[in-house]
Order: sequence, then C-alpha cells, then structure tokens
Amino acid sequence: MSNTNPARGMRDFLPADVRKRNYVIGIIREVYEKYGFEPLETPTVENLSTLTNKYGEEGDQLMFKILKRGEKLANKLEKGGIKNENELTDLALRYDLTVPLARVVANYKNDLPKFFKRYQIQPVWRADRPARGRYREFYQCDVDAIGSKSMIVEAELISAVCEILQKLGFLDFTIRINSRNILDGMMEVADIPKANRANALVIIDKLDKIGLNGIKKELLANDFAVESVRIITHQIENQVSLLNEATNNYEYNLQILSETSTPADEFASNNKNLNSYWKAKKELGEIVEYTKNSTARKFIKIDESLARGLSYYTGAIFEVNVPDFQGSIAGGGRYDGLIGMFGKEEIPAVGFSLGLERILLIMEERGMFPNDLTTNAADVLITIWNEETAGESLKLAGELRQKGLRVMVYPQPDKLGKQFKYADQIDVEYACVLGETELAENTVQIKNMKTGDQKNVAREKVSEELAKL
Amino acid sequence: MSNTNPARGMRDFLPADVRKRNYVIGIIREVYEKYGFEPLETPTVENLSTLTNKYGEEGDQLMFKILKRGEKLANKLEKGGIKNENELTDLALRYDLTVPLARVVANYKNDLPKFFKRYQIQPVWRADRPARGRYREFYQCDVDAIGSKSMIVEAELISAVCEILQKLGFLDFTIRINSRNILDGMMEVADIPKANRANALVIIDKLDKIGLNGIKKELLANDFAVESVRIITHQIENQVSLLNEATNNYEYNLQILSETSTPADEFASNNKNLNSYWKAKKELGEIVEYTKNSTARKFIKIDESLARGLSYYTGAIFEVNVPDFQGSIAGGGRYDGLIGMFGKEEIPAVGFSLGLERILLIMEERGMFPNDLTTNAADVLITIWNEETAGESLKLAGELRQKGLRVMVYPQPDKLGKQFKYADQIDVEYACVLGETELAENTVQIKNMKTGDQKNVAREKVSEELAKL
Repeated sequence: MSNTNPARGMRDFLPADVRKRNYVIGIIREVYEKYGFEPLETPTVENLSTLTNKYGEEGDQLMFKILKRGEKLANKLEKGGIKNENELTDLALRYDLTVPLARVVANYKNDLPKFFKRYQIQPVWRADRPARGRYREFYQCDVDAIGSKSMIVEAELISAVCEILQKLGFLDFTIRINSRNILDGMMEVADIPKANRANALVIIDKLDKIGLNGIKKELLANDFAVESVRIITHQIENQVSLLNEATNNYEYNLQILSETSTPADEFASNNKNLNSYWKAKKELGEIVEYTKNSTARKFIKIDESLARGLSYYTGAIFEVNVPDFQGSIAGGGRYDGLIGMFGKEEIPAVGFSLGLERILLIMEERGMFPNDLTTNAADVLITIWNEETAGESLKLAGELRQKGLRVMVYPQPDKLGKQFKYADQIDVEYACVLGETELAENTVQIKNMKTGDQKNVAREKVSEELAKL
Repeated sequence: MSNTNPARGMRDFLPADVRKRNYVIGIIREVYEKYGFEPLETPTVENLSTLTNKYGEEGDQLMFKILKRGEKLANKLEKGGIKNENELTDLALRYDLTVPLARVVANYKNDLPKFFKRYQIQPVWRADRPARGRYREFYQCDVDAIGSKSMIVEAELISAVCEILQKLGFLDFTIRINSRNILDGMMEVADIPKANRANALVIIDKLDKIGLNGIKKELLANDFAVESVRIITHQIENQVSLLNEATNNYEYNLQILSETSTPADEFASNNKNLNSYWKAKKELGEIVEYTKNSTARKFIKIDESLARGLSYYTGAIFEVNVPDFQGSIAGGGRYDGLIGMFGKEEIPAVGFSLGLERILLIMEERGMFPNDLTTNAADVLITIWNEETAGESLKLAGELRQKGLRVMVYPQPDKLGKQFKYADQIDVEYACVLGETELAENTVQIKNMKTGDQKNVAREKVSEELAKL
C-alpha cells in the first residue's frame, strides 16, 4: 500500500475543517470590505528572481524552489558539474504576501488607485521543521494600506482588526502599540550606537519569552555597555509596571503620552537629537485620539517596550495578544521602505497580519465556534424505496432544495435500516421516508433522527412542516 | 528595474477579478451545498510518489516538481553524476483534484461517511505552453460522489450542474450524455478489437473539431478496417442527424432509448455479447427518468457519439456545451476504477468538473455578471478636513459601517479637490464632507459623485439619508 498521508508539514482539510476556516475567513473579509479594503490574489508560484534576497539568508533556505523543466533541465544534467542549486531552478513558492504586493504595486501602478487598500488571504510555503502549530503550508491573512503617511491609516487598521476579533468572539485581547522611533529614541538615550540597534531590538523582542532578567543577560552577553543595559532595562521595567497597573486603557494611554511619564522622556527632554522620538509620541497620540470613538478604544494599550522582531518597520508597530496564548495572534506596523522595492520611489505603507492558524487553534480550544455553524452535510436525508420510486424521492428533494434546504438523497435502494444508519453517520436531523405506503397515500414520513419520533405528513405539506421543525 | 510580471502563464487577480471569481465560486458552492456535497481542501504540494505514474507520460512531464532542500540536495550535488531529475525532487504541485481525492479517501476511510460527496475548488498547476485561455495555474472545480453504482448519483450530479449554470445565467447550454458501454458496444458491432478501442475513442472524441470526414480519414490512417470505419461513421452520422432534428429534448431522449432507434441497436439485437450495451441503454434511461421532474430535463440530450478523451471512464459520461464556445464548459462521468487506486478495493465514483476559467471567460464576453455585483472599493468616501477634525470623520465612518455601509475614509488632510478626484478614481457613489462649517453646524454635506448634486444633512440623519439614496 502506498503512503496516503499528505506531504510532511502539510494538511488535508476535511469538510468540518473547511467550514470552520471559511467561517473565520468570511468574517475577516466582511469587516475588511466595510473598511474599503479590496481583495487581491497573486499566483502560488513566483519567478525565483522576484523572491530571492528579500527574506534574508534563512528565507532563501526555507523557500520551496521549483525544478527547471524539459530541455533546460536536461541540458544542465547532461553537461554535469552543477555547483549551485540556483542553476536548477527558476521558480519558487510564495513565501509571504508582502513581496507579491510590492510586485503588484510596481506592475499595475497605472491601474491601481492612488491609495491602494488591499486584503489578501492565501497560503504561503516555508520548508521549516514542522512542529505543533507550525506547518509548511499555512495561510497568511494580510491587510495593507498603501500611499499615505497619516496616522488615520494606522487608526483605521487597528479599528478593523478590533472589529474582526470581536465579531469572532474575542473579548479579552489587547492591542499593544508602540513606534520604532520611540525605541530608537530610547536607544539614543541609552547611548547605543546606531549600528547595534537592530540587534538590541531582536533581544528586547524576547521580553515575553525570557523576561527582564533574560534580556539583561543577553544584552550584556552581546557586549552592550553596562550603563546602556541599565538604562534600557530600567525603561522596560518602568513600562511594564505602568502597563500592569493600568485599569482604564484610554486613561493609561493619555498618561503614558504625557511628556514626562517615562524615564526616557526625562532623558529625551534634554536631548536635541530626539525629534523623531517626540514625533512618534505625537503620532501614538493621534492613533489614540482617532480611535477614541471606536470600540478599539478599550483594547489599545501603548507599550513602549514592544519591539517586534522584523527589521523593516519604520514607524508605528502593533501586536495583539490574548491571555491564554503565548505569542501574538496578530501584528503589524508601518513599513515605508518596503513596498517600493521594485520601483524607484519610496511608497509609504501600513499593514496588519492576522495569525489565521493561531486564531483557529485558540477558537477550537476555547470552543468559540457558533453553535449554529454548519457541521453536517445536509439538513434532511431522503430515502429511496426502490428504483421505480426513486424519481419521486428526487422530485421531493428538488422541491425542498427550492425552499433553501440542504438535502441529501440516499444514493441507492438499500434496506431502510441501512439508510437510517447513514443518516446517523452524516448527522442529519431529519429523514424523509417515501415508501410504498406513503406513495400510495400521497404522504411522507418525517423521522426525527435525534429523538426517533416519526410522523406522517401530507406530501404537499412536507417543506412547510420541515421549516416549522 | 526588476521584472515585475507574474511568472509565465500565471495571473495576478486584481480586486475586480477576484470579485467576479468569488461571485461564480459562491454560486457553485451554494448549489453543491444544497445537494449535500461537502467542501474538501488538499495541500498544494503532494509527495512526488503520490502523483507520478498517475497522469501518463505527458502528465509526468508537465508536472511542476520541487527541488530537494538542505543537506539532501547538497549531498546529491557534491557527489555529482545526477542522471535523472527524480534524484533532485521529492515533492510536486497538485496536478488535478482527483488523485488527491483518491488519496484522502484511502487515508481517512474510517472518518469519512459511507457515501462521500465532496466538492473541491482549488488551483492546479501544469507546465503547459501558455496560450489564450490556457494558464499554468488554473482553478479546477470538481464535484464527486463516491460509493454507489446507482444512476441516482448521475441524476443528482447532472441536476446540480444544471442548477449552477442556470443560476449563473446560462440558458442555452446542452448537457450531452452517453455511456462508455454504448460506445464499446458500437465498436463490438463494428468488429474493432478490444485493444484498439481506446485509440478509436480518442479519434471519435475529435468530432467537434475535425468533423465526420476528419474522423473517417484519421481512423483509416490509423489502420482501422474499412468495414469497421464504415459502420462507426454510419452510426455517428445517424446520431448527429437525429440530434440535430430534435426539437424537444425529453421526447428525443425517449426516442433514442427505444430499442431499435439506432443502427447499433439493430446490430446489437443479434449479438449475445452486448449485455453491457443494453445495460448502458437502461442506465441512460434511468438518468432521463430521474431528472424528468427537475429543470435538467430540458437540457439533457443523449448523444451516442459523445466519447470524452480521458481513458478512465467506465460508465455514463457527460459534457456541457454552449453554442458560442468551441469546446466544453463542463464534463464528467463515472469512473469506478480510479478512486480505489491507493487501496485494495474498487470504489465506485461519479464526478463532474466545471471549467471555471472558461465559464468566467464566456460570462465576461457575454456581459453576464449582474449589474449589482460589487466592483468598487466602497459605497461612500468620507473626507478629512484637517488633523484636528479627522477624529470626527472617523467617528462618522464607524457609524455608517455599523449600518452595513462600506466606507472609505480619505487617509490624509489633502485639498478637497484632490479628495473628490480620488472618490472618482475609486468610483464611489457618494462623498461625505465634514468641513469646518459642517462641523460647526453639526451637519454633513453629501455629494453625489455621478451628478455632482450636493446637500447638507443633519449629522444624525446621515446614515438614514444615505440608505434612502
């Protein structure tokens, strides 16, 4: 017997899985559409040259690359002496949704509106070592607004994500926000040289995992100056305790934004090089102001220790967490340098990415899917008495479908017991029996598969009766 | 500047494309769900061993194969002397939806219901030479019912496809049906040896393209006996003329099914080896009978010359055509030998595949998309006066979204003229202006972007007013 498993790290989605996924994706789409975001889909396969050198060395290694075909490949193999795998490949599988977006923006710049707001929900592929919750094929769910530097964009993105999460039933999430320029100011104050700041950010980003002491140790182990580390960790400690004390998020945010609330503020007020620090403070203030009338108001929390791992952010950054899950369920930020990568101009952009696979995992664990979510194949099963009467069963099926019911016709004239057993297996609530007696009397027997109750109903009243039930 | 086109033969779907595709896919899903079919999704990437030798030599050549990764590949390259491309690859992209279905049926046989009815709408990849309407990434849209040999299954599949096509607005299509066993009987009668019949079918399948004379020539050129060719082409000619004369499809079907309507029938009645021929006639009769109460009745036409190219069909075959398109827009049939390929037992199955890309092409050419299909990004644009008043614009946006409107907020405080220009570019019907005057008076100016009409409305009446418009 052959191996019939899906490929390593990939998943089959059986009907119940697809239905749950489509439920979540449906809500995401609906909310994004209400905010004026439009759907985009790009091909699974991209030219290798589009993707290489975009994701760092690790990305190039984890990319699934496609073998050249036909003569091109035959010639290579015949000649022999292939040293580099790139001689064998010309295409690769989509690795994220941001590089394809940048390519689309460059390729259709005359067809796209001045401010292009798109959402994209498609799988990506990474040849990572599979682990719990980590797959080699997984969906990304990105929303990006391109073309403006105004904080109105950040505010809209945050509001949309809040609305999605609430519609999905999350009530206990926090959207932490910060700015790369706040962090940069903090590092300026701590006298960390510009060249080392990206490294420091990667370490600070581990706060959730390794705690304040862990960060301290790792910074020192990476040769950051003792005084710099003291200032940074003092800042973070102060921020964390303010964050934990906060009872009303909106009030807390206003407090953090006041000019002398943090140790960094005190340092910064004496430093003339910190314009971008103060600008970032003002920008966070705008985000708080613009969202104060939306439901986002109570979910937003400024956290000046929030770092985010990725290097490309240039302004505001966001991360969404729930208490019972380590790691974020969504994140994003402003990245003004990336979307223009295929053109000559810098194009401002802000994006949010929802962790669809994680959201599904948490919803499953918490039992958050609605009770009325369709999980079975049909509302009603119609039985088949024999080949001669099958036409009558199909006729009834047609009528009930006209009324909007999902109707399964048992596919062959087996014994009635077998047909009921199948009805139980596929978990339909009602079976309609059209036997010889019923056909002679022009009735249908409706059987409640849960209770076993049966009743005979006049043929023309069946859909009415089922609607009632 | 880098190449920003999608890879050869692949397509980007911009928002208007995605919306049209989702509209069609939505109708397909809805109808299949009403017939008790359930959604299935399988991974893009399959183990190479799952796919090889399943699609013939051509299939193995057209498959996109994925390069091995990491040490596995490095070792191969270092050792050198690679003769066969299969040493370099372990995975490949999905080539159709049938082999993955067979794998799923074998892999989850204890979890799936006795009769598994699934639909699957996912892309597949083939390294074919791209041409008009032929892409290297394209969607297949398959529905299959597994586990029964009864013609009830064929009837249900045909009814579902008819309902889908009608819901999409097709009124002029024909579903031709035949059986491989009718063709086989015809070839028995014409004394064509069993071993040559598959070849003959491939030639007969070209009727639409090369006509009766073309078929005659090609059969003779392929060394079929003159008398065999005479009988076959006589049959086909007879069938085609009956088909063309038919005015009422249902009456015509009954006529074709009567025992001596075709030359083959006459031969067959004298031949004892033609049980399966007569069984096939009876089966087509059942399909016609079972669908006589559905709207499928008027679209079905028996065509005993219908061959279908694929070799795996074992019983009924179907093909859907529209007058203004050469080639079929859907097709399928019974293939009892294929789904069991990964197990030990034969598993009966009937399937239908809708040509999604072709259907979209024809609908586009004919202008069949509904007028009210969403094509723009939003219903309303809300302008921004300045940074101080932006919060008010966002507040209004939130209220209108609550009412179900799709609302775009202009993302920055540009001059009003620029904001209107953008409203025109994204084709919204209304713009809401909240300027200083409006804010002072607690009103909103609603501008009809098509007519240029403007009116001032009390702030609290805006959603009501827009709903009216």
